[in-house]
Amino acid sequence: MMRTRPLKVALLGCGVVGSEVARIMTTHADDLAARIGAPVELAGVAVRRPSKVREGIDPALITTDATALVRRGDIDVAIEVIGGIEPARSLITTAFENGASVVSANKALLAEDGAALHAAAEKYGRDLYYEAAVAGAIPLVRPLRESLAGDKVNRVLGIVNGTTNFILDKMDTSGAGYSEALDEATALGYAEADPTADVEGFDAAAKAAILAGIAFHTRVKIGDVHREGITEVTAADIASARRMGCTVKLLAICERAADGASVTARVHPAMIPLSHPLASVREAYNAVFVEAEAAGQLMFYGPGAGGSPTASAVLGDLVAVCRNKLGESTGPGESAYTRLPVSPMGEVVTRYHISLDVADKPGVLAQVATVFAEQGVSIDTVRQQGKDGEASLVVVTHRAPDAALSGTVEALRKLDTVRGVASIMRVEGE
Amino acid sequence: MMRTRPLKVALLGCGVVGSEVARIMTTHADDLAARIGAPVELAGVAVRRPSKVREGIDPALITTDATALVRRGDIDVAIEVIGGIEPARSLITTAFENGASVVSANKALLAEDGAALHAAAEKYGRDLYYEAAVAGAIPLVRPLRESLAGDKVNRVLGIVNGTTNFILDKMDTSGAGYSEALDEATALGYAEADPTADVEGFDAAAKAAILAGIAFHTRVKIGDVHREGITEVTAADIASARRMGCTVKLLAICERAADGASVTARVHPAMIPLSHPLASVREAYNAVFVEAEAAGQLMFYGPGAGGSPTASAVLGDLVAVCRNKLGESTGPGESAYTRLPVSPMGEVVTRYHISLDVADKPGVLAQVATVFAEQGVSIDTVRQQGKDGEASLVVVTHRAPDAALSGTVEALRKLDTVRGVASIMRVEGE
Repeated sequence: MMRTRPLKVALLGCGVVGSEVARIMTTHADDLAARIGAPVELAGVAVRRPSKVREGIDPALITTDATALVRRGDIDVAIEVIGGIEPARSLITTAFENGASVVSANKALLAEDGAALHAAAEKYGRDLYYEAAVAGAIPLVRPLRESLAGDKVNRVLGIVNGTTNFILDKMDTSGAGYSEALDEATALGYAEADPTADVEGFDAAAKAAILAGIAFHTRVKIGDVHREGITEVTAADIASARRMGCTVKLLAICERAADGASVTARVHPAMIPLSHPLASVREAYNAVFVEAEAAGQLMFYGPGAGGSPTASAVLGDLVAVCRNKLGESTGPGESAYTRLPVSPMGEVVTRYHISLDVADKPGVLAQVATVFAEQGVSIDTVRQQGKDGEASLVVVTHRAPDAALSGTVEALRKLDTVRGVASIMRVEGE
Repeated sequence: MMRTRPLKVALLGCGVVGSEVARIMTTHADDLAARIGAPVELAGVAVRRPSKVREGIDPALITTDATALVRRGDIDVAIEVIGGIEPARSLITTAFENGASVVSANKALLAEDGAALHAAAEKYGRDLYYEAAVAGAIPLVRPLRESLAGDKVNRVLGIVNGTTNFILDKMDTSGAGYSEALDEATALGYAEADPTADVEGFDAAAKAAILAGIAFHTRVKIGDVHREGITEVTAADIASARRMGCTVKLLAICERAADGASVTARVHPAMIPLSHPLASVREAYNAVFVEAEAAGQLMFYGPGAGGSPTASAVLGDLVAVCRNKLGESTGPGESAYTRLPVSPMGEVVTRYHISLDVADKPGVLAQVATVFAEQGVSIDTVRQQGKDGEASLVVVTHRAPDAALSGTVEALRKLDTVRGVASIMRVEGE
């Protein structure tokens, strides 16, 4: 069964993930060959800094001209682990044009321009695989695209950013504030020097766009994803969550509307019950909870980032793409036949946990309750706490459109008796 | 892209799973067609009792002659949801011979004779998919066979039987004994009238064999799997586990030996720490924890049984197999190139939690410790509790070959000062 002519692989990028991919391709060459049915050979490695010492990689393979590498014409598979939009996008397209299939770990690009890349792959009859783009090593793209291909996914709820999960978990277990927890994450290498992409939810939003597209067989771009980060989550929010039997997580949430005619995708911190399987996802782990019509509730858990886990996902795709090459076939391409519109955040139906600082005098609750009623928002529970002329009012609403809930908060801010809105957080996973 | 000639599907068996498969094929026909690229048509349904009313299925499709159905020659895919060894095995082989690929949910058959079935599929150039055979709707076979194809799996630890997990969870949360918990499981429909296959671990052993084969690219048959059920787990065992910060689960454990030259597969109750992700798998849910060299620790969680979840897995396979048919290709076949021997239980390295009833007099601990030392088993912790001339001694060992551990227990039983071995349980997941 084994053919002897090796499949040629171009590695585009050789940072943390790329160097690990190259290492495993060398150390596990026999296993990869047995699983593919042919040996795979690293034919070239495109880098920005050719002078850097790269252990285990033949210096003769190193090039700074990535375009020339993918244009050689003898490349079977290009592995793109450069990240960002350009030059990654042009290189992938050039690879397709020149006979190569592509394995990519590039969430930003897939979330920005996935449809065009899929179209190019289809035009040239190539594969585009990207398991590593969402939640690192956790098999997620393939299970959603293939295992659940006979089912109807209604909801995806994911912890898809390890940095923010580490910070929130630290705040939850130690009572630390946001800054303190961020400092610890930075010191331990879980947060980058500039943590913006993680803590402001951009990274999670890209993954939400990819997940929503795959789950609902439609197209969702990162610009369609409502995004809120965790920088305003306070120790008081976490303590409030605890009192409700909840914990706070940054969630990527993709939902099909009840009528099936639209979808939504959003990223924001939310309280989830401690009994929810996602609540026990600690430290920098990721997990994605999927609700499907026939399958019910599934969860996929694992390390969401890091060189080795991401390389594992890349190599799993490499094996699949190589097998397809040998069989002269391609795997499933983009499935976006539903073309469902993406509704804005205001139309998402959700629940709010609102903590108000109010004057400690009679009639305040009545005033507050009236505002909720005027906005058409039904209250689930209210807890009042008074101390020294000050009082706090914690309201948890029933489900309502997000626009009505945020409108309620705006109206509450205008009440004389409301001294401040101490915290607002959505409640999910119930 | 859509072709109009439908792919023809033969449904072999129309019980809980089969009728759900037929229902979804009808209600979701448009989605399935869009995802496959061609419509799928139910061409025949083989049943044992043709007179039974089957809602939503055209009576003209019903036949009692399953062999004639798969011999028709126009069947593209046969879905085997009969279960058991025969006639399922002959029908699958006949389907391959007559041009059909096969989707099966038959764990017993795959665990007994998977190699022969894979060989037949390869001989005739057909697909054999069986996601539904392990852990119901949880995507597991595909992630292990494909997503982790570029990685090296070292260990699989799974809760793969919902009935036993329900019983053990009930014992854990309510303090109930085994019989009481089994009665409740039976009353709620989680246990069958004859629960032997579940509570004695036969069902889990079949799944362990399949998982071990896929994870390690080798062949493991159900007869190679060491099997112990949960019928002897007592409320006292569960209480002991609690005192150690553990819970008791029936685990299917597949391991690669440290030297990589052999594998083991076993099913038995074990204590696992409450902090382990498997510990929070409640009720009848299943979950499989995978340790891979590059990916790290992954977990897959979901409903392990039931008509709808199992149908979801069957239909995911159906979509894949139909796509392959249209592309005139086949998916990955059996990958058993390592042909690693399966070591017997005695060679498995594990830890024991042993609870002894002993005479409450000086020197007992010294006697007991001597027995452990003679067997070459190192003790991790000992806890002594005395009451009214009686005493109990709870010993947790370090890791040692199972043969040495069970030899130690035999030797302990022979000591005059040991009145009885109250409980023995392995400790896993640390």
